[in-house]
Amino acid sequence: MTSDSSVTPGDTSGSASSSAPSTSDKSVPTADPVAVPVLIESLDSPEAIAAEVSDQLEAFLAEKAAEFEAISPDAAAVGEALIEFTRGGKRIRPVLLWWGFQLAGGDVRAGTTSGTSVSPTTGTSASSATGTSADVAVGLAQAAGSLELLHAAALIHDDVIDNSDTRRGRPALHRQFEARHQASGFHGDGASFGVSASIVIGDICLALSEELFERSQEALGGNRMARELRGTVRRDVMVGQYLDVLAEVIPLDDDRIADRAWEVLSYKSAKYSVEQPLLLGAALAGADSRQLEEISGFGLPLGQAFQLRDDVLGIAGDPEATGKPAGDDIREGKRTVLIAETAARISAEQLEILASRLGDSNLTDAEVAECVDMITDSGGLAAVESFIADKHAHATTIVDTWARADSGAVSAEGSAASARVHIGSAAQDRLKGFAKALSYRSS
Amino acid sequence: MTSDSSVTPGDTSGSASSSAPSTSDKSVPTADPVAVPVLIESLDSPEAIAAEVSDQLEAFLAEKAAEFEAISPDAAAVGEALIEFTRGGKRIRPVLLWWGFQLAGGDVRAGTTSGTSVSPTTGTSASSATGTSADVAVGLAQAAGSLELLHAAALIHDDVIDNSDTRRGRPALHRQFEARHQASGFHGDGASFGVSASIVIGDICLALSEELFERSQEALGGNRMARELRGTVRRDVMVGQYLDVLAEVIPLDDDRIADRAWEVLSYKSAKYSVEQPLLLGAALAGADSRQLEEISGFGLPLGQAFQLRDDVLGIAGDPEATGKPAGDDIREGKRTVLIAETAARISAEQLEILASRLGDSNLTDAEVAECVDMITDSGGLAAVESFIADKHAHATTIVDTWARADSGAVSAEGSAASARVHIGSAAQDRLKGFAKALSYRSS
Repeated sequence: MTSDSSVTPGDTSGSASSSAPSTSDKSVPTADPVAVPVLIESLDSPEAIAAEVSDQLEAFLAEKAAEFEAISPDAAAVGEALIEFTRGGKRIRPVLLWWGFQLAGGDVRAGTTSGTSVSPTTGTSASSATGTSADVAVGLAQAAGSLELLHAAALIHDDVIDNSDTRRGRPALHRQFEARHQASGFHGDGASFGVSASIVIGDICLALSEELFERSQEALGGNRMARELRGTVRRDVMVGQYLDVLAEVIPLDDDRIADRAWEVLSYKSAKYSVEQPLLLGAALAGADSRQLEEISGFGLPLGQAFQLRDDVLGIAGDPEATGKPAGDDIREGKRTVLIAETAARISAEQLEILASRLGDSNLTDAEVAECVDMITDSGGLAAVESFIADKHAHATTIVDTWARADSGAVSAEGSAASARVHIGSAAQDRLKGFAKALSYRSS
Repeated sequence: MTSDSSVTPGDTSGSASSSAPSTSDKSVPTADPVAVPVLIESLDSPEAIAAEVSDQLEAFLAEKAAEFEAISPDAAAVGEALIEFTRGGKRIRPVLLWWGFQLAGGDVRAGTTSGTSVSPTTGTSASSATGTSADVAVGLAQAAGSLELLHAAALIHDDVIDNSDTRRGRPALHRQFEARHQASGFHGDGASFGVSASIVIGDICLALSEELFERSQEALGGNRMARELRGTVRRDVMVGQYLDVLAEVIPLDDDRIADRAWEVLSYKSAKYSVEQPLLLGAALAGADSRQLEEISGFGLPLGQAFQLRDDVLGIAGDPEATGKPAGDDIREGKRTVLIAETAARISAEQLEILASRLGDSNLTDAEVAECVDMITDSGGLAAVESFIADKHAHATTIVDTWARADSGAVSAEGSAASARVHIGSAAQDRLKGFAKALSYRSS
């Protein structure tokens, strides 16, 4: 589909070859309110970030598991289950938080969280950390780990709500506790026990997410913008989840079906999975409002492309690659943008058939295939592919703007050239590669 | 049963008639590390506290409901449901948080959160607030409101787990959303929708609890001890909830039945409902570790008496007063201390009958009555009444110690006379009246 080679304009080579350090450069104050952004040469690799975050997450959960066991030997299972459950994640949100921190000029390896050459008039650097280098990396890994715990909590409850059997290639948590019920010879209904235990363990996971975020703030110094963003992340994903639950029971011919599908896509996924982790990381580095705005301009469309791709994979993905049966979203009854685009393009008779099948877990493969054909033949699928291409291109354009932000040529306030994020070619390649992977992945 | 009149020894009259102000007295520093505690003449009335907390809670929820509605008109129902749900509470935890603050010397009406005459060597007053008087009362009401939201979240999920039909005299939240499903002509299974929506709304309520607590810290200045305690409250109630879920499926002849029943009682209720709100309030006032220890010595036994009474009412309560059918806990299958005490006293045959009936929602009234008879006739009920009397007496003794702490007679460090909480007779009466009400209530 889209190739990276088409989006590397030659005029970024000047800044890419620059040797400006990526560390703080506060020794050169300027009277210009539009200060020169620090050049971010490179971003840490996703693998390195994932490793640091996993270490912090496991250490924290091991500590908590010991606390649970001290309360009661019976509670040990909770800690063990959470350690196991959080091992499998792709760490997309942690990587984005980390990069958001770096893009806003935060130096993970230095003893500061505010590496941008902030204008003396904005005073945003006042909220930066006073910790040592180790503190910053550890604090950032804890903040990132906190997002993983929030996500784990959402998944645990999501699987109960969707009555899903598997998660990350293993039985869903409620199925694991159902199996434990059976293996232990407990009495009563095993399925109910699994659901009840998972509701509570999801709540515990949510509480642990708060605790790890609080701990990260001790290491990072903390600031009000970051705390507020953290609250927004939490709220948005849950309200998005409510809208998702609601969408599945509202008749398919409802006036708001498309609006609601975009609301669910944006709040339950695009913002929460991509835009907000970037923003939170940037806020932790003491980003100013213009940097946050630019990062949002990249993150939101990329998040939308990410989720639109998920919707496509849920209908037309290769079961070998996705690990889910073909047309899985039909049986689950998800009201995605893809379904809304299809519903707007099919006949009343077809709409009636589609409506009757969405959410019916007992559909035959042939019935699912008929729905998939409807989605494809109506042009619904092509419309969503077109949205993805647009959103991906939009995100990519922002990255190129950042790469063109020449540190020597910033003058006209508000012009496109005065981007407040400034990256070198290695960072540009990293971001564009990641954007492409999120938008055009096959699993 | 126990009467207040028997526990008001004459030697408290000296301090009770003292006219020492309850405000901060930091103008008299002393070299003695065991500083003289401030005399707390009176505690605010539960009605006044409940009114202030309800005001803050409603204002906060109205603000959040507007935010939800801005995300999507469909999300407006979430805000409305939470405003309605939180209206019905008894505000026990808010009152205790408020009193904890006052007992540790915090002056709600003055512009300080640290009213104790703290030893210069401990430095605990360094973390006190710098806000104005309005800030302190508002911040305290927000912190108390945050506990109400945590409790509401726990109840919403609890009702899903227990499949309860009613809460606070109205349909349980999942039943309300089930009814909404039917009234709106949604499709799919209404009961599932009710459960799914309630899981998510419980999560949202938990998130809002965090947010309101964070907001309270802005007004109160905040300190590490309070934040840590807040984390402990959250963790303990949830781990207690897990243990409760687990207890209900473990065979009644298990070795740990009594231990587990005490763990559930302490963590899910006694600590969370009584001890920890007091401690959290005290920590917000900048209490030192000895004050916290004394307050814990009062709060934990009182919390245990409170929950033991709940267990008794769940079996032998008057349905007219409790609003629940007689022997309701039998059908629910709760594994209370009362059940454990009974199980230890009945024959193997009786144990088999009791085990087979606990948790069976289809029991006849006669079958329930037979179980209630077993609990009464075995001596299980009397044993628990005796525990309640002991715990209540224990809590009351601490209150009396506080009332005897003569501000002029503190010298021997660690002696009983050197209590770090010092109250007048009005506060003493208030605390003992509340302790009696919690321990010997009929509903």
